[in-house]
Amino acid sequence: MMKQPAFAIEAWKIHETTLNLDVLAQTESVFALSNGHIGLRGNLDEGEPCGLPGTYLNSLYELRPLPYPEGGYGYPESGQTIINVTNGKIIRLLVDDAPFDIRYGQLQRHERELDLREGVLRRTASWISPTGRSIKVSSNRLVSFTQRAIAAISYEVEPLDTPVRVVVQSELVANEALPGVSTDPRAGTVSLAPLESEEHEVQNLRGLLIHHTQASHLRIGAAMDHLVVGPEGMTMEAESTPNIARVSVSVRLRPGERLRITKFLAYGWSSQRSLSAIHDQIIAALTAARSTGWEGLLAEQRDFVQEFWKNARLEIEGDAELQEAVRFAQFHALQAGVRGEQRPIPAKGLTGPGYDGHTFWDTEIFVLPALTLTFPAAAAGALRWRHSTLPLARKRAHQLGLRGAAFPWRTIHGEECSGYWPAGTAAFHINADIAYAVAFYIACTEDRVFEQEVGLELLVETARLWRSLGFLDIHGQFRINGVTGPDEYSALANNNVYTNLLAQQNLRAAAEASRRHPQVALSLGIDTDEIASWNEAAEKMLIPYDQDLQVTPQDDAFTSYERWNFADTTPEQYPLFLYVPYFDLYRKQVVKQADLVLAMHLRGDAFSPEQKARNFAYYEPLTVRDSSLSAATQAVIAAEVGHLQLAYDYFAETAFLDLYDLAQNTRDGLHLASLLGTWTTLVAGFGGLRLRGGSLAFGPRLPEGITRLTFHVVFRNRRIGVDITATEVRYALLEGEPLAVWHERENITLSTQEAVIQPTPRIQAGPRPKQPPGRAPLKRAAHSLSKGTPEPLHHNG
Amino acid sequence: MMKQPAFAIEAWKIHETTLNLDVLAQTESVFALSNGHIGLRGNLDEGEPCGLPGTYLNSLYELRPLPYPEGGYGYPESGQTIINVTNGKIIRLLVDDAPFDIRYGQLQRHERELDLREGVLRRTASWISPTGRSIKVSSNRLVSFTQRAIAAISYEVEPLDTPVRVVVQSELVANEALPGVSTDPRAGTVSLAPLESEEHEVQNLRGLLIHHTQASHLRIGAAMDHLVVGPEGMTMEAESTPNIARVSVSVRLRPGERLRITKFLAYGWSSQRSLSAIHDQIIAALTAARSTGWEGLLAEQRDFVQEFWKNARLEIEGDAELQEAVRFAQFHALQAGVRGEQRPIPAKGLTGPGYDGHTFWDTEIFVLPALTLTFPAAAAGALRWRHSTLPLARKRAHQLGLRGAAFPWRTIHGEECSGYWPAGTAAFHINADIAYAVAFYIACTEDRVFEQEVGLELLVETARLWRSLGFLDIHGQFRINGVTGPDEYSALANNNVYTNLLAQQNLRAAAEASRRHPQVALSLGIDTDEIASWNEAAEKMLIPYDQDLQVTPQDDAFTSYERWNFADTTPEQYPLFLYVPYFDLYRKQVVKQADLVLAMHLRGDAFSPEQKARNFAYYEPLTVRDSSLSAATQAVIAAEVGHLQLAYDYFAETAFLDLYDLAQNTRDGLHLASLLGTWTTLVAGFGGLRLRGGSLAFGPRLPEGITRLTFHVVFRNRRIGVDITATEVRYALLEGEPLAVWHERENITLSTQEAVIQPTPRIQAGPRPKQPPGRAPLKRAAHSLSKGTPEPLHHNG
Repeated sequence: MMKQPAFAIEAWKIHETTLNLDVLAQTESVFALSNGHIGLRGNLDEGEPCGLPGTYLNSLYELRPLPYPEGGYGYPESGQTIINVTNGKIIRLLVDDAPFDIRYGQLQRHERELDLREGVLRRTASWISPTGRSIKVSSNRLVSFTQRAIAAISYEVEPLDTPVRVVVQSELVANEALPGVSTDPRAGTVSLAPLESEEHEVQNLRGLLIHHTQASHLRIGAAMDHLVVGPEGMTMEAESTPNIARVSVSVRLRPGERLRITKFLAYGWSSQRSLSAIHDQIIAALTAARSTGWEGLLAEQRDFVQEFWKNARLEIEGDAELQEAVRFAQFHALQAGVRGEQRPIPAKGLTGPGYDGHTFWDTEIFVLPALTLTFPAAAAGALRWRHSTLPLARKRAHQLGLRGAAFPWRTIHGEECSGYWPAGTAAFHINADIAYAVAFYIACTEDRVFEQEVGLELLVETARLWRSLGFLDIHGQFRINGVTGPDEYSALANNNVYTNLLAQQNLRAAAEASRRHPQVALSLGIDTDEIASWNEAAEKMLIPYDQDLQVTPQDDAFTSYERWNFADTTPEQYPLFLYVPYFDLYRKQVVKQADLVLAMHLRGDAFSPEQKARNFAYYEPLTVRDSSLSAATQAVIAAEVGHLQLAYDYFAETAFLDLYDLAQNTRDGLHLASLLGTWTTLVAGFGGLRLRGGSLAFGPRLPEGITRLTFHVVFRNRRIGVDITATEVRYALLEGEPLAVWHERENITLSTQEAVIQPTPRIQAGPRPKQPPGRAPLKRAAHSLSKGTPEPLHHNG
Repeated sequence: MMKQPAFAIEAWKIHETTLNLDVLAQTESVFALSNGHIGLRGNLDEGEPCGLPGTYLNSLYELRPLPYPEGGYGYPESGQTIINVTNGKIIRLLVDDAPFDIRYGQLQRHERELDLREGVLRRTASWISPTGRSIKVSSNRLVSFTQRAIAAISYEVEPLDTPVRVVVQSELVANEALPGVSTDPRAGTVSLAPLESEEHEVQNLRGLLIHHTQASHLRIGAAMDHLVVGPEGMTMEAESTPNIARVSVSVRLRPGERLRITKFLAYGWSSQRSLSAIHDQIIAALTAARSTGWEGLLAEQRDFVQEFWKNARLEIEGDAELQEAVRFAQFHALQAGVRGEQRPIPAKGLTGPGYDGHTFWDTEIFVLPALTLTFPAAAAGALRWRHSTLPLARKRAHQLGLRGAAFPWRTIHGEECSGYWPAGTAAFHINADIAYAVAFYIACTEDRVFEQEVGLELLVETARLWRSLGFLDIHGQFRINGVTGPDEYSALANNNVYTNLLAQQNLRAAAEASRRHPQVALSLGIDTDEIASWNEAAEKMLIPYDQDLQVTPQDDAFTSYERWNFADTTPEQYPLFLYVPYFDLYRKQVVKQADLVLAMHLRGDAFSPEQKARNFAYYEPLTVRDSSLSAATQAVIAAEVGHLQLAYDYFAETAFLDLYDLAQNTRDGLHLASLLGTWTTLVAGFGGLRLRGGSLAFGPRLPEGITRLTFHVVFRNRRIGVDITATEVRYALLEGEPLAVWHERENITLSTQEAVIQPTPRIQAGPRPKQPPGRAPLKRAAHSLSKGTPEPLHHNG
C-alpha cells in the first residue's frame, strides 16, 4: 500500500491535517503556487526537510548538450531545462538555541491548506523544541495573480507557554543543492551548471541577488523586502554574499506576544535587459507590492480568483471527494495559465522540474480547449507564444526539407529539444494540434483580432507543412506516411488516422480563415491555387478502414499486427516502456494512450455512432494507459457511446492522479493535462459538449455516481450554464445575446429571459468492453467516501 | 578533381611511384599489412609525417559509455572501440644532425610497393638532407601469416656520396598522439583513455612494454628484438620508459657501406593471463621468430601466399587495371581472414579505425561466401567466433523478450554496440545472414565436424529467434513486422522481403540440419514439434507482392511510398543521410543499398527470371548507392538479367573504391565487403555461380570489356577451374573426385580426366535501366587504361 497524504474532504480547500515526510515531495507539488510567471513549490518555509526545492520562472532555462551515440542529420544538439532559481521562500527560525526543524523536537500539530477561493497557501504548526520550548508558527503564502512579478509571505511566530528568544532569518538563496538524478526519462535533468553571481546587496530590510545562467545567458534578479511587527526590543540586521541575502530579526517573545514578518518577493529576468535595468525592475515591483500591502494583495487575489470561478463553475453532487479533486484541478489550471502571457504552459505548469519544464502537445489538446471555455485570454496568451516561435518553426521545417512550420515536440524557448526523433520530430501531429487549438479558440470566441494577428498565420503555416509532408498517390489519395501519432507505443506509421483527420481539419481551417481575411492572406503569399491545394489534400485525405474487422485501424498496418501478449505480462511490467524495448511495442497491437479514440473525440464528425462504439470496443482491450493522458479521453468516448460507469471510473482515475500520486511521479510536478482532463470528462464527457458546425452542442448523460452536474462555459461573449440531473437538463444563458445550441439533435435557442429544459437522453450501450488484464480502471463506487485507499495502479505518464 | 595516389599498373604489385602527402592516410590503408591477428597501417617507418597512426590487435578494444539524450529499455550502455596499441613500426633515422623527415630536405625518389605474391611491403627512398647529405633508405615489412604473433622489418640505410654518421632508433611507442575527432558517423571514435603501463624493460637489443586498458581491462604486451649488421665502430644502446622502449644504433657509414637492422616484433594480449604470462609469451614468440630469421619468415610468407593464390586464382583479360584491383582486393581478404582464428573479421579488417573496428553483417554476406570458396578455414574461423558469442546473443534475445539468439548489429566482443536501434537492433536480418553463411559453408565444404560443433547450434538458435519474432496471422501467414532490412534508408518495415526470405531459408536449414544430427539436436532440446513449427513458419512466410506494379515491394508498404524527389536533389546532397533526416528517407521510395536486389542474389530461387528483370528495372532508378555495399550486388543481378555493360560499370566502381578513394573515407580503413565484392561480381556475376539445390551452378556471361575470365573455387575438397570467353566456357576439375555441376539448365559432370566445354550462353536484356540523376556508375570503357582520373563519385558507405 502506497503512503498517501491525508487530505480532508472540503469543498474549497485542499487540507492536509498531518505531515507525512514520506510524501513530502508529492505534497510540495500539490501545494505549489503559481501565477504562470512565477512558480513556488510548496516547500516548508524553513527550507528543510525538503523533497525537492523548487522556484521557477516561466521560460527561464539553461542549455545542456544532447549527446548521441550515433549522430544524425537534424538531431537537436542542445536541450533546454527548467532550472531552480533563487529561492525566496526561505524563512528560518531559531527558538532559543534550537532551529525550528520538524524532524527534531515534537511536532504537535501541522496543518496546511490550499485555499481554492482565496488563492493562498496557509500553514500552521505547533512545535515543542528539543529543549522544551513550545511555539506556534503560522504562515500564509501567495503568488500574486494581479502583480505578476510578486509573491508574498506573511509569517508569524508566538510562544505558547514560556518566553523564548527567537531569531527569524528571511533569505534569498541561489544555487541550492538539489537531490540526485533520477533514471526515469520522465523526470527532469538536473546537475546543470550553477547560476553565476552578478550583484548582491542589502539595504535596511531589503535584499537583492542578481545572477545569470552560464550557457543560455539569461539574467535573473530576485529581491525581497520586509515589514516587521513585534514587541519592543527587536534587533534587525541584513547581510549578503553572492548566493545569499539575509535579513535577521531577533526578539524575546513572551506568551501572548508575537512576531509577524511580511515578506515581499519580486522576480525579474531577461535575455536582453542590463544589470541595472533588471535591478530597478525588481525594486520597482517590490515598491508597488509594499504599497499594496499584504492585505491589499490578499484582497486582489480573492477578487481575481472569484472572477475565475464565476466563469469556470463546475459542480457535481453525489461525490464530494471528486468535487474537491475537480476544484483542485481547475485551480491549478488557473495557476498555470492565467498570467503566462505569451509564455508556454509547460506539461507540469510551474510545479516541478518534470519533463525538463517542457511544453508538449498536451497543452494545445488537453489544456487550451478547457481554458478557452473558461478563461479565454489564457488560451490566447499561450497561442500567442506559439506564434512568437514561428520563425524557429519555419527554420526547423526548412531543415527537415519541408514547407511551412514544424513546431517542436518539446521545448521551452521554441527550438526542438527532443533527442529521440521517432517519438519527437516524427510526431508531426503537434502541428495539427496547435491548429486545432487555434481553430477551437476562434470558433468559441470569434476573436477576429487574434485571428488576424496570430491565428491565420498559425493555420496557414501548419497547413503548408501538411501539404509538403503528405502527397497524392497514383490513386489520387492524400497519404501522410512515416509519422508518429499520439500513441507512443506506435511510431513511424503510415496514415495514422488521428494525424490525418486533424491535418484534414487543419487544411480546411487554413482555407476558411484565408477566405475570411483576404488581405492578411495576401500578405502571407497565399493565392487561390494554394487554397485549392489545401482543400484538395483535405478532400482526398486517406482514412484507412479495416473491412474485415469493421474497425478503423489506428494506421494503415495496425490491425495486421500481432496482439500484445497480455496474458504473459505481469503487473510489475507496467509501464511497459520501462521493461520492453520500443521496437517490440511499435510492431504489436498495444496502445499506450488514446489515439484513434482521441480522434473520435476531436473529430467525432468523421465517425458514425455505430463506428465509434465498435472502435471503442476494439481499442479498449489494447489500451494499457501507460500515459496519464489517456484516461480522460477514454472517459469522454466511454460516455459518448454509453458506458457511463466506465467513464466514471476513468474520471476518478484522472481526477485523483496527483492527489493520490497514482503515477508515482507527482514529486516531479503535477500532470496539468490530466488535471484538465477532469474538466474535459465532466463537460465533454458527461455534458457531451462538442462544437458542431461551429455551434455548441450538448449530449448530457450522467453516471449513477453523479446525481447532478452543473457547469458554466463562456462562449462568444456569453456565459452559459448547464445543469444536468438524471431526468432533465436545464440550459441557461447567464449573460449575453441569445444563442442557438444543440441539445442532442435538437436545435434550441437560449436567451437570458428563460432557461430551456430538456429531458436527459437515455442511451443504450452494448456490453462493457474489457481492458487488458490488470489494467481496468478501479471501479468508482457511487457516493464513495473512501479516503486515500485506492490500490496503487502502477501506471505512469 | 580529387588527388589520387599514383599507382603503376602491375599484375602482382600495388606500386606507388611518388609520395603524395595529401593522400598519405589513404595510402596507409592501402599499404596496411595484417594477418587477421595483428594489423599495421602503412605508416612510414620514421613515424612522421603520418595520416593516421595505426597498430591493431584483433578484438583488443576499449569501452566507452554510450550516452543518450533520452534513454530507453534495452539500449546498450557501453560501446567497444578498436584502439591504436603500442606502435612497433617506428624506426627513426638521424643523418648527421638532421632527422630523416621527407617534409624537409629533398626527396629524390620514393617508391612503395605491396607485393601481392610475397606478402611484403617494400619501400625505397633517396633523400638529400637539409645539410646536403645524400642517403638511400630501404625497408621491407611483413606481418607473418605463419607466425601469428610476429611482424618483422628489414631496414637498410646507406650513404650515396659522402660519409655520414647515422643514428637509427628502433622503438616501441605506446599512447601515440592521434589526430582530432571526425564528425562523420562512419569514422571511428577516438580520444579514449590511454593505455596504462604495467612493465617496461630493455635488455641488450630487446625491448618490451606491457600495458593494460583502463575500462575493458585487457593486458597487452609488445616486444622487439634486433639483428644489426654494419661496418665496424657501431655503438648500441637501449632504454625504456613506461611508454617507450628504444634501441639505438650509431655508426659512421662511408659510401658503399650500409647499416642493416632486422627488427622482430611480437604482440600478445589477454583478458585473463597474468603479467608474467604475457611477458613470457611475447618473448617466446620473438625467440621463435629470431630462430626463423628474416629470410626464413620471408620464405614462409611466400609459400603461404602462393598456396592461397592456387585456390583463389582469378584472372581477367582485357582490363589490366581491373586485374590489379582484383588481386589487391583478394590479397586484403587474405590478410583480414586467414589468421583471425575464432576472432571476428571487422568491416575494415585491421586496416584502420573506421566503424570503431566493429564487425557487421557485411562479413557473413559479402566476405565469408568468397572465403568459403577460396580459403574455407578462414570462413570457419569467423563463424566459430560467432558461435563463441552465443551466450551473449542468447542473453540479448532474452532481454528483448525473444527466444533463441539475437546477434549484435555491430560489435567487437559480442555485445550489442549499436546506439541507434532503428538501424541496429531492429536489423534482425543479421541473424539470418549468419545462418546463411553457416549453411553456405556447410553446403560448400560438407564439414560435418563444423556442422555438429558450431553450425547446427547457430542455425537452431537463429531459427528460434525468427519463430518468436514473427507470428501466424489470422489468415495463416507468417509475418515479421517492424524490422529493418539491409537498405538503411528504410527502417521498421513490415515483411521486408530480404529478411523474410532469408529467415525462411534459416528456418529450413535449421530443420534440415537437426534431422541430419538427431543426437546433437536432442542435446539442444529440439523435438519434432519444434522442427514442425520451423517448417510451418517457413512454408507460410509472407512475401508481399504488388499486383498493380507487378513488382516485389521491398516490404509491405514500400511501393505505396512517395518517390524521392531526385530532380531537386543536388549532387552535393549525397550521401543523403548527411543532408536529410532519417524520418524522411524512411518514408520515401529511395534505396541506399541493394535490399530486394540482394534478396534476388541470395534467394534467386524465389524469383522467376522475368520477375528478377522487372524488379531490377524497378529498383535501379531508386537506388542511390550511398553505401559501398551496393554496387557489387547490383553488378551481380545486372549480369544475371543481362545488363552486362552496367554490371561491368558497377564492377569497376567496386574494384576501385579504395584504390581511388571513391567514398572519400579510405583513410579510416579499407572497405572489406566492397573488396570482396570484386570477387563476387566476377564469380557470381560474370561466372554466374550459385548453389542450386546444393549443387554448384554456373551462368557465365562476359561484358565486352572482359575478353576472358578464369577463376578457381574450392568446393567439397575439390578444386574447380572455370575459364570463360565470349564464345565458350571450359570447366575443369583440377583436384578431387568427379562432381556434377550445372551449366545454365544443363547438368554436367566434371572429372580430372577431361575438361568440359560448353558454349557461352547468349542473353537478351531489355533497355538498360536508368539510375537516379547523377547516380549512375561511371561507364567503364573496355580496355580502359586511364590512370587515376575517374570523376569523384561522392558516394560513401
